[in-house]
Amino acid sequence: MNRRVRVKAPATVSNLNCGFDVIGMAINEPYDIVDIELTDNGLIEIAGIRGCQSISRDIDKNVAGAVLKAIISATGVKCGFRVIIEKGILPGSGIGSSAASSAATAFAANILLDNRFTLAELVAFAMEGERLASGSAHADNVAPAIYGGITLVRSYEPLDIIRLNIPPDLWSVVIHPRAEIKTSEARKILDKEIPLSTAVRQWGNVGGLVAGFFSSDYDLIGRSLVDYVAEPKRSALIPGFDMLRKAANEGGALGSGISGSGPSVFALCRGEDTAGEVLVKMSEVMNSSGIRFSGYSSPVNHEGTVRCN
Amino acid sequence: MNRRVRVKAPATVSNLNCGFDVIGMAINEPYDIVDIELTDNGLIEIAGIRGCQSISRDIDKNVAGAVLKAIISATGVKCGFRVIIEKGILPGSGIGSSAASSAATAFAANILLDNRFTLAELVAFAMEGERLASGSAHADNVAPAIYGGITLVRSYEPLDIIRLNIPPDLWSVVIHPRAEIKTSEARKILDKEIPLSTAVRQWGNVGGLVAGFFSSDYDLIGRSLVDYVAEPKRSALIPGFDMLRKAANEGGALGSGISGSGPSVFALCRGEDTAGEVLVKMSEVMNSSGIRFSGYSSPVNHEGTVRCN
Repeated sequence: MNRRVRVKAPATVSNLNCGFDVIGMAINEPYDIVDIELTDNGLIEIAGIRGCQSISRDIDKNVAGAVLKAIISATGVKCGFRVIIEKGILPGSGIGSSAASSAATAFAANILLDNRFTLAELVAFAMEGERLASGSAHADNVAPAIYGGITLVRSYEPLDIIRLNIPPDLWSVVIHPRAEIKTSEARKILDKEIPLSTAVRQWGNVGGLVAGFFSSDYDLIGRSLVDYVAEPKRSALIPGFDMLRKAANEGGALGSGISGSGPSVFALCRGEDTAGEVLVKMSEVMNSSGIRFSGYSSPVNHEGTVRCN
Repeated sequence: MNRRVRVKAPATVSNLNCGFDVIGMAINEPYDIVDIELTDNGLIEIAGIRGCQSISRDIDKNVAGAVLKAIISATGVKCGFRVIIEKGILPGSGIGSSAASSAATAFAANILLDNRFTLAELVAFAMEGERLASGSAHADNVAPAIYGGITLVRSYEPLDIIRLNIPPDLWSVVIHPRAEIKTSEARKILDKEIPLSTAVRQWGNVGGLVAGFFSSDYDLIGRSLVDYVAEPKRSALIPGFDMLRKAANEGGALGSGISGSGPSVFALCRGEDTAGEVLVKMSEVMNSSGIRFSGYSSPVNHEGTVRCN
């Protein structure tokens, strides 16, 4: 039986514009690493958090605590868990920071408990971390963080995660301006009701995006990357959003938008070279703005959460 | 140059529950046949309508007139068109009656005008028939009627029709109770605004349905056949809807719902045998009700509108 395990969970770009709350994609960088050791004292302990000083070690305020409590509650195990989290993904970045820690925690605990759960069940446990972090147990980041690739949350009741085809040349670029936007705040500015005509346009694009993924039709993917719901409200929260989009277009991106609830901005590209060019163009915008940022270029991450020891 | 042409356009099941206003599927039966003869008098003439007495021959009230006027306006041709329509699809049935006549008219006129238009352009012309018939120029019936198969209207501006993969064993059953529901009336009872949470559930299913078509995942197709928007409002207009659904389930259908704006009810099935069984079960419900009806079982129509002389 494993007594200690170290796992790695990737950052994720959720929504992909039209797929608000349902579509997400894993990327290779950045990522979180979680070490968990089984203990005999029956306690959950967050023994250390590296790479971020703002995250609480209180198990009632840390997503790993929420996930482990859910797992203990579901299994009735009497063991304890000692957790060390290495944050590669900054909280509030909009690229699934809480999701990665939640996914890694669920995945690691499952190994320590002899792999009794399916990946779908691990998604459900990881969602408890999301509930703590954002107030709603969404799965559009934890699903791709765990499965890898591109996922669709078709339904929450019952939870039904669909793995979408990954076009072979699909790359992403992510720019993370160092301005924190709380998911809970970004949700509040959305309208609770939307015109039916707007909803129809949005789900036309959801259908187009999914069709584009399955047929590896990069132009169709690009045409479908439209968001009539969140972006019109949220883009104003993101400094330089219009210029970042313009830069992504100039670099040859298929499309671009807000990653999750922001402030990160993503672009999808066909091929590594284009992604490199788009990263350069978008980085120039950020450099001119004087706002600190991180930039990443990555193919779609296929592996999801993996053990690394 | 052709002076006379006869074409056949299939009935279509639009919406497929979650894909309200964007998804449609062509079926083999019933169908409309349109004969058009080029004339030199510069006039549009609806010379005859067979199989239905309620359709006007006035070119300002007949969808063929609307389509031909649009084509004349776009091309500036000075010729006339003499049209005979053979209605296999009853008006107000909810299986694309006006769409089939519109599609056939556009397709036939294009042959007579030396095939100058693309299929996408023919969809746009046929939409003028829909505008006349229902007050809105929707494409979710005319697109599959022209292209065949299963189509997605990703966008109207610009018009972007996406052909979805057709799972090889996909069959449909359609029951048409002889009660007419006007599309324009069925639209009025829908809410103009819907909760964002409802919209998200709907587009989760749109994504699932499209993914199910591309991966020929019949269970996923069935799970995705859910409509949170139109069915809750419209199903009350359809006599015996709940019993028809129950019968479809008992027969082994993947799912069922309202075809277009009704009153036809459709079911999707895996394989001909199941479709046959579902047709029997649903027909039993109708027979018990005493309401006159027509019933059809058909694989997905692949050909769309075709010439038949």
